[in-house]
Amino acid sequence: MNVAAIRIIGIDPGLRNMGWGVIEVSGSRLAFVACGSVHSSARESLAARLCELHEGLLRVICDLSPSEAAVEETFVNCDPQSALKLGQARGVALVTPALAGLPVSEYAANLIKKTVVGNGHAEKAQVALMVKFLLPKSEAKSPDAADALAVAITHAQLRISRSLAKSLGSSAR
Amino acid sequence: MNVAAIRIIGIDPGLRNMGWGVIEVSGSRLAFVACGSVHSSARESLAARLCELHEGLLRVICDLSPSEAAVEETFVNCDPQSALKLGQARGVALVTPALAGLPVSEYAANLIKKTVVGNGHAEKAQVALMVKFLLPKSEAKSPDAADALAVAITHAQLRISRSLAKSLGSSAR
Repeated sequence: MNVAAIRIIGIDPGLRNMGWGVIEVSGSRLAFVACGSVHSSARESLAARLCELHEGLLRVICDLSPSEAAVEETFVNCDPQSALKLGQARGVALVTPALAGLPVSEYAANLIKKTVVGNGHAEKAQVALMVKFLLPKSEAKSPDAADALAVAITHAQLRISRSLAKSLGSSAR
Repeated sequence: MNVAAIRIIGIDPGLRNMGWGVIEVSGSRLAFVACGSVHSSARESLAARLCELHEGLLRVICDLSPSEAAVEETFVNCDPQSALKLGQARGVALVTPALAGLPVSEYAANLIKKTVVGNGHAEKAQVALMVKFLLPKSEAKSPDAADALAVAITHAQLRISRSLAKSLGSSAR
């Protein structure tokens, strides 16, 4: 059976560095497309920094044409002022793919770790190792690009499980 | 001397209700243009809600053509999860006018109260009363629309003071 490939963009939100990773899923096969980070300069105003992030992400979406997006659901355990700052970047991470017409899913950090490593409390380095194992051609040059690939892998794996469950359900009828 | 009128949009960020108010400044005269709120439905996904807010704000900017924007600088004193939520809406409040090419200024809540009422610790009701006094034609139907007009008035007053200081400085030379 020939299965149409689906491109997924994973996003790891941050005000200074916004990680992104694009993968392709065909049936149950995952393939690396590209990854990187969009940066914003701390010398600019907050509005200008959010614009930089939006424009950078939009460029990636236009260049690589993913059809679905997945964003890490942030659990914040810091002071409210830092949470507000992260929230502002997260607003851009969510609104940019949505404005480009992509459905946007959110996944909690421990679900991502559980899906990629098999342990919801895995260390960052273990996640990066498993990303490299699952996508051997990937070369994430920063932790946020590796994290973004992990979000994309999570979305892909859960998508594969859902479609398997669906086809098993329909064949059992 | 004929002074060109400048339109200012003030924005009071919120995820459920995003207040906005547009005023016009000619010399030292302020005039009300319009105000209201953009809403997002709690039944939608977060990405869809942020899109609703962005599209609503963008429609106001396109319809009323303000040339400068002012956003309330939020001081959060709540739990980090609520701060993150507010931050996401605030990201949209900042990025939307910036993407439309407007310079965006931010003002702290106590500076807004000090400028509009004369007291940095004024109550919300006092701010709404002064907004009505300064802009008699305004009819803010919600507290967030009144707050947005207060942000716009603050930007206008500080703009007037700066331009007065500049002209006094140049005439003293």
